[in-house]
Amino acid sequence: MSDIKFTIVGAGSSYTPELLEELSQRREELPVREIMLYDINEERLDIMAGFCKRFAKHLGMEVDIKSTLDLDKALYGADFVDTQIRVGGNRQRVLDEKIPLKYHLVGQETTGAGGMMKAMRTIPVMLDVARKMEELSPTGWLINYTNPTGLVTEAVTRYTKANIAGFCSGGIFPKMWAKRSLGISYDRVQYDYAGLNHMNFISNITIDGRPVTEDEFLKIAGENTDVDLELVKLLGVIPSPYLQYYYHTTEKVNKILSRPRTRGEEVMLLEKEVYDAYADQNNFLKPAALSKRGGGGYSEVAIGFVNAIYNNIDTAMVVNVPNNGAIKFLPDTAVVEIGCLVNKRGISPLNVANIPEMCWGLISAVKNYEQLAVESAVEGNVRKAKLALLAHPLVREYDLVEKLIPELLEANKMYLPQFKF
Amino acid sequence: MSDIKFTIVGAGSSYTPELLEELSQRREELPVREIMLYDINEERLDIMAGFCKRFAKHLGMEVDIKSTLDLDKALYGADFVDTQIRVGGNRQRVLDEKIPLKYHLVGQETTGAGGMMKAMRTIPVMLDVARKMEELSPTGWLINYTNPTGLVTEAVTRYTKANIAGFCSGGIFPKMWAKRSLGISYDRVQYDYAGLNHMNFISNITIDGRPVTEDEFLKIAGENTDVDLELVKLLGVIPSPYLQYYYHTTEKVNKILSRPRTRGEEVMLLEKEVYDAYADQNNFLKPAALSKRGGGGYSEVAIGFVNAIYNNIDTAMVVNVPNNGAIKFLPDTAVVEIGCLVNKRGISPLNVANIPEMCWGLISAVKNYEQLAVESAVEGNVRKAKLALLAHPLVREYDLVEKLIPELLEANKMYLPQFKF
Amino acid sequence: MSDIKFTIVGAGSSYTPELLEELSQRREELPVREIMLYDINEERLDIMAGFCKRFAKHLGMEVDIKSTLDLDKALYGADFVDTQIRVGGNRQRVLDEKIPLKYHLVGQETTGAGGMMKAMRTIPVMLDVARKMEELSPTGWLINYTNPTGLVTEAVTRYTKANIAGFCSGGIFPKMWAKRSLGISYDRVQYDYAGLNHMNFISNITIDGRPVTEDEFLKIAGENTDVDLELVKLLGVIPSPYLQYYYHTTEKVNKILSRPRTRGEEVMLLEKEVYDAYADQNNFLKPAALSKRGGGGYSEVAIGFVNAIYNNIDTAMVVNVPNNGAIKFLPDTAVVEIGCLVNKRGISPLNVANIPEMCWGLISAVKNYEQLAVESAVEGNVRKAKLALLAHPLVREYDLVEKLIPELLEANKMYLPQFKF
Amino acid sequence: MSDIKFTIVGAGSSYTPELLEELSQRREELPVREIMLYDINEERLDIMAGFCKRFAKHLGMEVDIKSTLDLDKALYGADFVDTQIRVGGNRQRVLDEKIPLKYHLVGQETTGAGGMMKAMRTIPVMLDVARKMEELSPTGWLINYTNPTGLVTEAVTRYTKANIAGFCSGGIFPKMWAKRSLGISYDRVQYDYAGLNHMNFISNITIDGRPVTEDEFLKIAGENTDVDLELVKLLGVIPSPYLQYYYHTTEKVNKILSRPRTRGEEVMLLEKEVYDAYADQNNFLKPAALSKRGGGGYSEVAIGFVNAIYNNIDTAMVVNVPNNGAIKFLPDTAVVEIGCLVNKRGISPLNVANIPEMCWGLISAVKNYEQLAVESAVEGNVRKAKLALLAHPLVREYDLVEKLIPELLEANKMYLPQFKF
Repeated sequence: MSDIKFTIVGAGSSYTPELLEELSQRREELPVREIMLYDINEERLDIMAGFCKRFAKHLGMEVDIKSTLDLDKALYGADFVDTQIRVGGNRQRVLDEKIPLKYHLVGQETTGAGGMMKAMRTIPVMLDVARKMEELSPTGWLINYTNPTGLVTEAVTRYTKANIAGFCSGGIFPKMWAKRSLGISYDRVQYDYAGLNHMNFISNITIDGRPVTEDEFLKIAGENTDVDLELVKLLGVIPSPYLQYYYHTTEKVNKILSRPRTRGEEVMLLEKEVYDAYADQNNFLKPAALSKRGGGGYSEVAIGFVNAIYNNIDTAMVVNVPNNGAIKFLPDTAVVEIGCLVNKRGISPLNVANIPEMCWGLISAVKNYEQLAVESAVEGNVRKAKLALLAHPLVREYDLVEKLIPELLEANKMYLPQFKF
Repeated sequence: MSDIKFTIVGAGSSYTPELLEELSQRREELPVREIMLYDINEERLDIMAGFCKRFAKHLGMEVDIKSTLDLDKALYGADFVDTQIRVGGNRQRVLDEKIPLKYHLVGQETTGAGGMMKAMRTIPVMLDVARKMEELSPTGWLINYTNPTGLVTEAVTRYTKANIAGFCSGGIFPKMWAKRSLGISYDRVQYDYAGLNHMNFISNITIDGRPVTEDEFLKIAGENTDVDLELVKLLGVIPSPYLQYYYHTTEKVNKILSRPRTRGEEVMLLEKEVYDAYADQNNFLKPAALSKRGGGGYSEVAIGFVNAIYNNIDTAMVVNVPNNGAIKFLPDTAVVEIGCLVNKRGISPLNVANIPEMCWGLISAVKNYEQLAVESAVEGNVRKAKLALLAHPLVREYDLVEKLIPELLEANKMYLPQFKF
Repeated sequence: MSDIKFTIVGAGSSYTPELLEELSQRREELPVREIMLYDINEERLDIMAGFCKRFAKHLGMEVDIKSTLDLDKALYGADFVDTQIRVGGNRQRVLDEKIPLKYHLVGQETTGAGGMMKAMRTIPVMLDVARKMEELSPTGWLINYTNPTGLVTEAVTRYTKANIAGFCSGGIFPKMWAKRSLGISYDRVQYDYAGLNHMNFISNITIDGRPVTEDEFLKIAGENTDVDLELVKLLGVIPSPYLQYYYHTTEKVNKILSRPRTRGEEVMLLEKEVYDAYADQNNFLKPAALSKRGGGGYSEVAIGFVNAIYNNIDTAMVVNVPNNGAIKFLPDTAVVEIGCLVNKRGISPLNVANIPEMCWGLISAVKNYEQLAVESAVEGNVRKAKLALLAHPLVREYDLVEKLIPELLEANKMYLPQFKF
Repeated sequence: MSDIKFTIVGAGSSYTPELLEELSQRREELPVREIMLYDINEERLDIMAGFCKRFAKHLGMEVDIKSTLDLDKALYGADFVDTQIRVGGNRQRVLDEKIPLKYHLVGQETTGAGGMMKAMRTIPVMLDVARKMEELSPTGWLINYTNPTGLVTEAVTRYTKANIAGFCSGGIFPKMWAKRSLGISYDRVQYDYAGLNHMNFISNITIDGRPVTEDEFLKIAGENTDVDLELVKLLGVIPSPYLQYYYHTTEKVNKILSRPRTRGEEVMLLEKEVYDAYADQNNFLKPAALSKRGGGGYSEVAIGFVNAIYNNIDTAMVVNVPNNGAIKFLPDTAVVEIGCLVNKRGISPLNVANIPEMCWGLISAVKNYEQLAVESAVEGNVRKAKLALLAHPLVREYDLVEKLIPELLEANKMYLPQFKF
């Protein structure tokens, strides 16, 4: 590998400048020759291409920033393809949130019935990217942040041969938490991490190789997780923040219903502000509003991966990868989110020898849903979509399934070429 | 094995005469020398001993019917020990039902939080029986019908060396259904049966070795299961009737709440009537009210097992047995309810090569709950009781767990010697 | 299933009359309408068809005995197809024996390099039978006795959809031994049986459900097995007689080398005598010489299977079946020889929970060889043939492999259409 | 962890100075405060302590070099305990070699019957070290090089709680080979490594993340492995050099027999020369003869491990670790030699998703032997020693086992306190 061609699919996303910034910070070790911006939304792409050029100049980066509406051109010869797409945009996201809420179910873009619909819209597009990469950049890496990243990665690994690394910033949350609450740098914090994307449990946290004290544990957990601290004490391990939707379902649904706007609607408002700032020809700084956007840690993880691969540095990372026996009670094809060793050779999953005693059933239940949802999304199979929701711990009831599926499919019609209507 | 000593633990139960009747019907092949009735309730034991003697005479059985309040005496040298106890009686059962219902949760004697409490009360008593059998009847068989039979059997197999066969009449339901709906005899009907007690799925039904037609399938399913027929069609396999609590939760809870009495309360009324009949010194016939009592098929399965063992006849039966790899995604110690080969040598579980695609996650989730509940029941461990309900698909929410556990433990205080209060 | 059409492929074999005799003995329960004899050797087929008719008449059987040289006709509508072929005849068998012996290796028709060559010749023919049965008798059962039955069965189950039951009389050896040495009838004797065909171990023998005494164990083992009794005592379990080739290799090879004739050569002489008797138009009795032929128990097992299937009688049998997790350390596709439940529904393998501590490595080693040999035989792949022998515990050394493979392939050229020469 | 206490058990070994040299080379990153030399041989310990002080001075190391005959003192507070012991010395090694050779079997210090005897002598001593470490240096690491390292590590991990890292320089052989034959630095070379110590297979070698060319593969294999190059081509993967004893057994045994001295006898001669040089008070350089001693790479691997742990640097290393599901066909307790991630947290085994098609049977066979040998060594169990050799692919024949075991035990009597004589 000589100098890097770094392609961003969905470059119109407001996250793009953060990737640029991270690449700039690591420019000594990562000689990026070309950053190729691709999107299907020409307006946003133009805004972002303009801003990125100003931003790069401001950062003092010497890099060729290009943009294109042609996916083949974007992928051709790319060393890394970072995907951050949102099929159907925030308009569809709001539907993912609102339709389940009508039935007093969690309405969320990655969890529950809403998450399944996001998967249904996203998977065909991502398979297209992956299949093109098989031809156009066969040794390149697809770095996926597109949610639900577990389902997207499972679809790509089961149905294509592209090299994909499925990421979520959740993989470094305990490091972020320890830094925030204890003032400890990332590299001193380690832990067992096991489960699925947004359905995982963190145990055996160590600092400098020694187990955290109870005090440290409570600070890390108490100041940062989204589940009740008493629950964390009971569990003895830290669940992913998304477990709040499982362990505090009713409370959470009521809270969302009590808000004037869903998260998707808030983001839509926020994005207007952000894009106005990006579009300003005189602006070369990240908009202040961006910090309210969430998603911290993404660029850090993505570019950390690029560094491990490009510079062949053994690096422990949490990645979404095919199971192949790493978690013994899950199928080989199941994509799991676990600790891995990354270096130029690629991603080598660690064996998961132990799993907290209270979580393997829930992880299995959600993975059963995920595999059915992926198959449904790939095959355009309505029956499997229903079975997926029946298998989902947050839906399960048959009459809900029969109400939700037709409504969800109808609302996403335009984005589901794989289904017959 | 020469002539059989058949002991009934909990012989005061209204089911006892049905065991007698079944033994009578098979008297040619099963030479029972002694039927030993044991109970802790002296009044019921006397009533039942009296009735059984009249009933046996009426049936023309030549058998020595004895009764005792001494467990050691009951178990000593027994070839088969049939257990049908109800620790705390129907009074506690009603609490198992009503406490969860307060929180709009399934209140049921084997499923959900109520089922766990029944396990908590029952397991210490059953471990006591099993441990005594290790000494007093080491080659004898403990035939367990005491619910929740899966949890009871798991406790006995994990913590004692007694020979136990955990049964549920659910194992022959498809045979009963085919007989009822298609007029076909038991031996012509076969199927794959996999999962846990009250959490299982029946697939690949055959008649005379050939797959059932769609018509036959729909008749069997439609006229007999307690879940929606449309749901069965969607699944393509037949779930245990207890799956109604999972797939039709809200509807089912509402239905129960709308009734004047819980099932436990109904049974209490019914039992009065039944025991009055039993107590009548002139009566030698099974009370008519017994048919409303449910539990059909129990004696048939139990005595079928006795026959397979005693006469060494290879017999396919559904039994609750330690997994040991039969279902590959469950732990070795997990008791599962699956097809087995039974003969004089004992119980040999069949390997479960395939499991319906939509159910492995739910089965795992429930087994995760069960294993925590069993450990809690054996250790008197409150934390594990909470983790068990958190892991239970029908409870899961943390605030419910924190409300339910103290209330359930308090309500069962008298029957939980293993817990500290 | 109405009356039975029973087809024998390789009906020219001297075993055919024993099948007839067994069918005759069970005629009450097995209404055979037609016995169809098929062979490619017209002369032998005619001799056998003639004898079988006389023999059937002598036995008082009312059955239609037909013969044909047309395989399609033989298979069409058959309920059971019993295969007992010997591709290349005893002439090739002698080469299977003699070529390895040149290198001081076990030369045997099922074990070692010779066994592999028999598999190479047999598998293409058996796949042809199985594929025709998919069309011509899709619900019929292929009962395979053709050796090496484990490899043949694995080829058929991995590459076709035919219903196959792979048998070896070894499955009932402990019953035969107990009968012979202790005078105990078959049905009273049971045991754990695990491993592969001709590579298995028998443990936990019981009589009437109780463990055998040490005395009984030693009688059963000492008077019947072909390995040293001291070795059996050391093992504590009884190895298949074929384990003599593994545990007494040198002694065994020397013994064979010291004989004037190999077993194949002896059989050739014997067969002459036997066929002369069969050909005698006045003879209607099994030739006396047949008893020297070996193979006792075959017809018993085969027709026992027919009875279990046809009459839907739950029957414990040892069968060669795809593993699918029954033995957890072997691949799913590996055919294993284990206890199964047989009834009209077919063959349901028992889960193998325990395996003797000293044998799992050897079983794995031989199965590794077997899988490579099967793939080589199906694909005509010389490299895999070499890898198979390298993986074989009785060959293993590379220079032997490089000498054996060309010589063995050359010697079998005429019977290996799948290989390029 | 502040400054390091580094203890060497068996410090009288001629390898000690190489550890010193390696520590000296990495002194910037590894602040060793104290090197504690321990041995039971006072004479050698004195010689080595004297030399090490001169050598350290020569290297310019500032470190406190101590020596002791008191094991407790040596282990107390040690951060790393490097073990390189030879129980019974080379005198016993020669017997390990010669006794099997009498029967024309591989006589070798780690492979075959000889390797088992070395394990029998070594395991009690190593368990003693490990158990003392549980008390005296509970967070310290036992770095084991004592052969057979796989069996020693399995004994320690199954029977103690000490932190042990079992190493063999074989883990970096492909790196050494690529450097030697292609002039490529270690960090550019990566590969899949799977199996057991001295029973492993290297596949999918990459340079800078890309697969090696056929040319590169042949150079790496051809110039360095001890098995026939044609065999490597056939396999398509590179076997451990110790596989020569399996794939070229006869040739190898004959070669050894044709030599005037066994390797052990050669080493004895060599060691005289080496120790004379060490004992020379004026000498501060490693003796030239040391290079003939073999064992290259040991100190590099050991101190690489110290660096990964002490400085918390994610490092891919091949380590002997308990399997726990990493290789799915082996038991959880089996120690396997596989790729791991090492950092301050300890050793995290990678999941082994694929294994070369021709080697899993042989690996299983050897592991079966190893587990029986370890149990025999711990329990002093003669029966299991016999079963171990029966299970060993290089022994297997029963009459050999019955001859070897009494002779081997007798010859090692003085060093086998766990056995009754």
